[in-house]
Amino acid sequence: MSLLETTIKAIYPQDSEYRDLAKERLDQLALPHWALGDLMDLAIDIAGMTRSMNPVVSGKAIVTMAGDHGVVAEGVSKFPQEVTPQMVHNFVNGGAGINALARQAGAEVVVVDMGVAADLHDLAENGKIINKKVGFGTNNIAKGAAMSMANAIRSVESGIEIASELAGSVDVFGTGDMGIGNTTPSTAIAAVITGKSVEELTGRGTGLDDEQLIHKRQVIEQILLCNKPDPKNGLEILSRVGGFEIGGIAGLILGAAAQQKPVIVDGFISTAGALIAVTIEPFVRDFIICAHRSMEPGHRYMQEKLGCRPLLDLNLRLGEGTGAALAMNLVEAAVAVLTEVATFEEAAVAGADK
Amino acid sequence: MSLLETTIKAIYPQDSEYRDLAKERLDQLALPHWALGDLMDLAIDIAGMTRSMNPVVSGKAIVTMAGDHGVVAEGVSKFPQEVTPQMVHNFVNGGAGINALARQAGAEVVVVDMGVAADLHDLAENGKIINKKVGFGTNNIAKGAAMSMANAIRSVESGIEIASELAGSVDVFGTGDMGIGNTTPSTAIAAVITGKSVEELTGRGTGLDDEQLIHKRQVIEQILLCNKPDPKNGLEILSRVGGFEIGGIAGLILGAAAQQKPVIVDGFISTAGALIAVTIEPFVRDFIICAHRSMEPGHRYMQEKLGCRPLLDLNLRLGEGTGAALAMNLVEAAVAVLTEVATFEEAAVAGADK
Repeated sequence: MSLLETTIKAIYPQDSEYRDLAKERLDQLALPHWALGDLMDLAIDIAGMTRSMNPVVSGKAIVTMAGDHGVVAEGVSKFPQEVTPQMVHNFVNGGAGINALARQAGAEVVVVDMGVAADLHDLAENGKIINKKVGFGTNNIAKGAAMSMANAIRSVESGIEIASELAGSVDVFGTGDMGIGNTTPSTAIAAVITGKSVEELTGRGTGLDDEQLIHKRQVIEQILLCNKPDPKNGLEILSRVGGFEIGGIAGLILGAAAQQKPVIVDGFISTAGALIAVTIEPFVRDFIICAHRSMEPGHRYMQEKLGCRPLLDLNLRLGEGTGAALAMNLVEAAVAVLTEVATFEEAAVAGADK
Repeated sequence: MSLLETTIKAIYPQDSEYRDLAKERLDQLALPHWALGDLMDLAIDIAGMTRSMNPVVSGKAIVTMAGDHGVVAEGVSKFPQEVTPQMVHNFVNGGAGINALARQAGAEVVVVDMGVAADLHDLAENGKIINKKVGFGTNNIAKGAAMSMANAIRSVESGIEIASELAGSVDVFGTGDMGIGNTTPSTAIAAVITGKSVEELTGRGTGLDDEQLIHKRQVIEQILLCNKPDPKNGLEILSRVGGFEIGGIAGLILGAAAQQKPVIVDGFISTAGALIAVTIEPFVRDFIICAHRSMEPGHRYMQEKLGCRPLLDLNLRLGEGTGAALAMNLVEAAVAVLTEVATFEEAAVAGADK
């Protein structure tokens, strides 16, 4: 059996017994009933994912997957492709948004070369990044498939491998991405899986003007027309209109779920990876925590398709895992509510009148 | 000059020069323009408050002010009044929601007896809480004024004193409250200051049913009819329809602003304190960060009156400072964006095409 098949077989839904135990305790906390709202819902989820009333969430890592996209030849991004490797260096040097926010949250940043169109083997040899390069950028999806089916599987399995390699020290995963042009494949994935129109889903990415936005929509329409993936086949969608880092994110999510560990899904690109993962194995949904609602208009439809309400709404549109890093604090907070708050009885506090 | 007068004189708006400097740097960060959205707006505010491009926010305290309310005689809460001192003991023992969330955020919890209707001098003598008791609960505001004008001033000045006493070690303040029945005076304050109707503003507090909610609205209408405070006189509003802990919160906010320190305002009761503070001195607004949007329906109108968009929306309705504790992480994150993220030039990353 392949790594992907073994992983899929290891993914079960949340444990309803631990969900019930968590709810039972949270119902009795010395506070007006459910007064910590969404944190309490999240605490139930985490108990159900980890099969524990005392979930450990101190080991935190943001895995930032980098890859390039042949579709930049169509003029879908304001930034040149060289920015992808430049930003990888910025991550390694600790100067990017994700470095600052992960430090604040006490999370490690793990940078993975999934398919950057530049030679990064020096960084990998020095242990600064993980090398899982599938290729030097995808093919131009406006003209054909992004990658072979074999490479789609390879990119997903790379993400699974990373989840396994980190599992010894990491209790909570966060996803992140870097790849100039990657809102375009992500929007194409969203269109295929949500069934929403390109017009509803497409946004300005890193800052397109009106004319550039119209052009981007036309390119995405062309991508869909040219590739026509089966909406029920996650690997086919990935191979035809996806990206190497998007496959890596999907794999990381599958790998985390197989290890019964929560995975905080960042923004627009990460959510495209999550949609691929859920299409491959629907039970994976039970291990996903949606970090935030991105400024990209399609994000809400993607999160609705996942059935996941985001924790934060701060007008972010950076990616890299920045929203996931911010949400790590809320995951810790939810666990603190479950494990550190006294019940009415423990605290000797009088309850409400009936 | 009184402490209150000296404090008011020390409050100036944010420094526009530091706001401009912060914006200039944030404009150049190696990310799509303003891609960290609300965190970047918050970073500008914090630079403007602290007059610094390198604001220190490591010293964090939630000040949880406790007080009782004579209006509980009207049956406006589901919980008996004895819960207020019981919860003070729970805070001291570290078992309450605020203890768990403040620990997660690395913040100290400072508990203040502003006017609990129980003898707590043992806790104060052992240094577990700060004693600023103005009285054993307010008068029943459905029948007359909550407190004398002298005690209104005393409660506000107590909050100012606490801000001064803590200022040596605290860089960012968070407000918190505990007081059975205190959504009732808070709603009355909101009605006076926002001009909205009691029906729009009144919520279920700790969990009233439909009939109890109708009764609570009637009581609040009676409170307003009986007290008729001048909407432009913050101290008069506090003395007629307020509470000791609400005055303490208003004072803490004024004191923080006078020291040019950010103050994170928690939920419904804390926002009532903020409205009192802003009515006393409008410039104080520039130092307020709204933590979250509470489940209490009136909260949004109060935040609109303050002109403050909350950072979080997690269906919280606990108080104690719990929302402020969660928001402390976002304040730290905003400062990290300002101080730790490299510019395009520093990171040698290519900018966007024009």
